[in-house]
Amino acid sequence: MLVAPDMSRTDEGEAGTIPQPYLLFLGDTQVAGFAKTALGLRDWAPERCVGEYALPGAAVTTGLPRLDPAAAKAAGARSLVIGVANSGGFIAPAWVPALVEALEAGLDLVSGMHSRLGDVLELREAATRLGRRLIDIRMPPPNIPIATGLKRSGKRLLTVGTDCALGKKYTALALARAFRTRGLDADFRATGQTGILIAGRGMPMDAVVADFAAGAAELVSPAAPAGHWDVIEGQGSILHPAYAGVSLALLHGSQPDVIVVCHDPARTALLGDETFPVPPVEEIADLTIRLGSRTNPAIRWAGVALNTAALDEAAAAALCRDEEQRLGLPVADPMRGGAAFDRLVDSCLR
Amino acid sequence: MLVAPDMSRTDEGEAGTIPQPYLLFLGDTQVAGFAKTALGLRDWAPERCVGEYALPGAAVTTGLPRLDPAAAKAAGARSLVIGVANSGGFIAPAWVPALVEALEAGLDLVSGMHSRLGDVLELREAATRLGRRLIDIRMPPPNIPIATGLKRSGKRLLTVGTDCALGKKYTALALARAFRTRGLDADFRATGQTGILIAGRGMPMDAVVADFAAGAAELVSPAAPAGHWDVIEGQGSILHPAYAGVSLALLHGSQPDVIVVCHDPARTALLGDETFPVPPVEEIADLTIRLGSRTNPAIRWAGVALNTAALDEAAAAALCRDEEQRLGLPVADPMRGGAAFDRLVDSCLR
Repeated sequence: MLVAPDMSRTDEGEAGTIPQPYLLFLGDTQVAGFAKTALGLRDWAPERCVGEYALPGAAVTTGLPRLDPAAAKAAGARSLVIGVANSGGFIAPAWVPALVEALEAGLDLVSGMHSRLGDVLELREAATRLGRRLIDIRMPPPNIPIATGLKRSGKRLLTVGTDCALGKKYTALALARAFRTRGLDADFRATGQTGILIAGRGMPMDAVVADFAAGAAELVSPAAPAGHWDVIEGQGSILHPAYAGVSLALLHGSQPDVIVVCHDPARTALLGDETFPVPPVEEIADLTIRLGSRTNPAIRWAGVALNTAALDEAAAAALCRDEEQRLGLPVADPMRGGAAFDRLVDSCLR
Repeated sequence: MLVAPDMSRTDEGEAGTIPQPYLLFLGDTQVAGFAKTALGLRDWAPERCVGEYALPGAAVTTGLPRLDPAAAKAAGARSLVIGVANSGGFIAPAWVPALVEALEAGLDLVSGMHSRLGDVLELREAATRLGRRLIDIRMPPPNIPIATGLKRSGKRLLTVGTDCALGKKYTALALARAFRTRGLDADFRATGQTGILIAGRGMPMDAVVADFAAGAAELVSPAAPAGHWDVIEGQGSILHPAYAGVSLALLHGSQPDVIVVCHDPARTALLGDETFPVPPVEEIADLTIRLGSRTNPAIRWAGVALNTAALDEAAAAALCRDEEQRLGLPVADPMRGGAAFDRLVDSCLR
């Protein structure tokens, strides 16, 4: 069963796929963690991105060419993707003039925010006037069932984390790619808006009504052949004061055989919620194993994915080595690869 | 801040309160656990119930007079409340003729199901034709914020459980009543459809979009004077394969000072999910304390509420005594009261 967002339910009621390539909109973002959609598309689907567009004062860049909507259109772009998220997932009023400019330049708008593009009066009016599409990918499909908790065939890996926005999606993408490199049948399974834009399908987990969230997670990785791996993008953190419920529903519905804990050693407090310290990786692993064993008693912790973007190569390698020794499990930065990452892949497939 | 469901958003777009008194509809229910709305209203708001109405073959009764819609209307009823739930919360096709009959008899329909009354064509048509209201109370209010996790003033107690539908709401109602009897300022806080019908306000937790569920839980028990108690109705179970995400969001958002674990000793497997054993009370307590300490490090387990409805009085008392000795905490059936329940109340207020 494919689990694509229902693209027929745009505000125009039109059916269709997401128009590509994209112009990535960065808004006025100051923190790279909030630009994860733009950065994720640059890293994992660069062939679909012609450039970036930011408001004055933005402090984040993808490194792609800076193009205004008219220049992007001339370069072949067919849509502007809102490449930033904020806490709550709403379309900031400060963004609206730039979004209208994109519509006027002939681009459709693609959003993974909670609020609908068409709920912003200026966007709805401009799209109608210009005959452009407003495409909301954070809309779950209809008729999601209540979870059964029953075991499905095939193998599953879930990336879990000590916080939001620190590498769960990248780790899942890198592991799925490594599994395929080793000749295995493996799929990356997207559970958030960026992953859905990268994979072309998936489930916007955090937009599902709470009672159905575990059922939605069961749809993400349907029954598969015994040797097949689903590598599932984790969401939030089991100890995040706002999002832990989503994380737990995804854990129970994913029934993973293997978990990899994702962590950013440079982050001491939760992103956007600084009164909360980031918990240790072993606490996340222990809680995840305890809770996850409810739907898969064979659940197992394979290792840690560290996001060492803030460190130089020597410091990153030393940190992974120290953590590997401390925990007795492989610890690697999937974006750096190398022997440490090979050991992590070995451990996942053991 | 009051957290009433938005009654203005009925299918007719009419504003208003829930028309009372009620005729309780039991459908074709075979299992008392699925009739918890009807049984809850009978037990906690009997003055608002004129009778019950069931389909042939139903095996559950509230003990209230059996009245068809016309007789209920003659006895003063103003609405028929769907008093049963099924897994998934949908309006069963077999119920529709009886619901149309109620509309024709002059009753409005009140539903706490997930699916909207107006989504059933026959009900929508009949309500329009007859000028009757279709009232869905399982609709969360608009503009729920993302949870902050920040501490609020006042005291909070959350009832948690080893499964669904085994006494979390009754325990919360009984504790709130006992707190008030002792002269404390205490409110029962409803988080499900039955509780909302009893309390006249509350938050339908399981109908909130997952990303906002903890934020919704924060609205349920707003900041209050230091001596005030909110006694919050728990939902689901932290180890339920379908609903644990809702339970965890409610736990984090409730930031309880005190938890009481609710358990039905007669139940060995989850209701409607028989492949899953009911976990021990101490496992639920331990996980709840670990996860709940994230938003309230002072969280404390006060005792156990046993649902001993299946036992005679002597057996119930013996079981509570044995469990109290085994756990070293008060264990009581709130519906039986007595010295054991007094000890449980003492422990909550310690």
